[in-house]
Amino acid sequence: MSAGTRRTGRPSTPVLGREVIVRGALDLIDEVGAKGFSIALLARRLQVRPSSLYNHVKGRDDILAGVRELVADPIDAAVFDTLPWDEALVSWARLYRAAFAAHPQTIALLATIPVSGAHRTLRMYESVVAGLERGGWPIASVIPVMVGVESFVLGSALDLMAPPAMFDPGPDSPEVPRFAAAVHARDDASAAQRRPAADLAFEVSLTALVDGLRTRLAAEIAAQGTTVDTGSA
Amino acid sequence: MSAGTRRTGRPSTPVLGREVIVRGALDLIDEVGAKGFSIALLARRLQVRPSSLYNHVKGRDDILAGVRELVADPIDAAVFDTLPWDEALVSWARLYRAAFAAHPQTIALLATIPVSGAHRTLRMYESVVAGLERGGWPIASVIPVMVGVESFVLGSALDLMAPPAMFDPGPDSPEVPRFAAAVHARDDASAAQRRPAADLAFEVSLTALVDGLRTRLAAEIAAQGTTVDTGSA
Repeated sequence: MSAGTRRTGRPSTPVLGREVIVRGALDLIDEVGAKGFSIALLARRLQVRPSSLYNHVKGRDDILAGVRELVADPIDAAVFDTLPWDEALVSWARLYRAAFAAHPQTIALLATIPVSGAHRTLRMYESVVAGLERGGWPIASVIPVMVGVESFVLGSALDLMAPPAMFDPGPDSPEVPRFAAAVHARDDASAAQRRPAADLAFEVSLTALVDGLRTRLAAEIAAQGTTVDTGSA
Repeated sequence: MSAGTRRTGRPSTPVLGREVIVRGALDLIDEVGAKGFSIALLARRLQVRPSSLYNHVKGRDDILAGVRELVADPIDAAVFDTLPWDEALVSWARLYRAAFAAHPQTIALLATIPVSGAHRTLRMYESVVAGLERGGWPIASVIPVMVGVESFVLGSALDLMAPPAMFDPGPDSPEVPRFAAAVHARDDASAAQRRPAADLAFEVSLTALVDGLRTRLAAEIAAQGTTVDTGSA
């Protein structure tokens, strides 16, 4: 982000503009959570009157569209232009999880407001949709497939926020012997592979999900009697 | 919930106890969100002093353990005792999504605090773990598989909160032609099948995820040279 020019007498405050407002909104949501976000609080944080914000953004929805773009900017969907759909989907899912894990307070918020107005995010979706179509997915299945992967990714981003001892059964351990044993075995595997436990769950399930989608696509194509590339495997 | 006996002069207020406190906490979180929840606010809602709560619960963590039990109570994991692991996993995932969709404000909260102390929830996990083990899953893979499905389910519960026009590209429609076409095709399929769009995404991906897990288990078992039941398919 460019720091912009300086306002006289306020050397550390960048000039108000859409980028500064959207960045400020994301910082605020990171700190206080989605429920605590308000135009009034954002204006106070930026040391301007609420009415000044409206010279640069249309309102709350417009600000949140900008927040969505900012959070989603690292999610590179250009891989759909160069890789088979299934490999692209795996790459996209990893970047998507990392992007939202960096701003966990936005997960529930952005999952429940329209994407309309987030131009850069819409272009990301366009790449995903076009890639899945080129891979042979029937147009009516494309959004369900994309949303299913998104749901898995957002839930996995939430799981990254879980404390290390999330599944410590505590004093109940003898009451749930197989659960306790499974948690210990998982922790041992995580230590032996030097991979966080959350990554084990994410990668096992991401691979399974995309494998299962590949199988389904092959079945859909067989049912339609058409022949197209069904992915890399 | 039993209404309990009545306090003199307060005919409409049930006697304070663990169940009343936990139910009140869940109602409060449903209304104000996880970030807004506090012992002070809960006490005010129940018309008692905060110190009175500590006669019945140990504190915030204990209350939230009770909230987890209350939310998760409808998630029947007994199917793991009677069905093959893959069918049980599908049934469990559907009930899990519905249970959290009924209390969306708890999704991000309960995903990020330890499960310790939620006895009934621990017993649910014990059934899932035992079922997956009986199905042939190596003990070290059981928690990653369960957590991966949980992540998908919680993300899907969030997706149920999305507005119907979540993916309306708005005036940007001509800029993202394949995305716009895919959204329309999805909406048409949803209308034709009389199923909500969120259900299409959930069911397609749940089936794919469990299919992919079945394939992976078969591969793990083949690699180990053992022979066990790999599910129903």
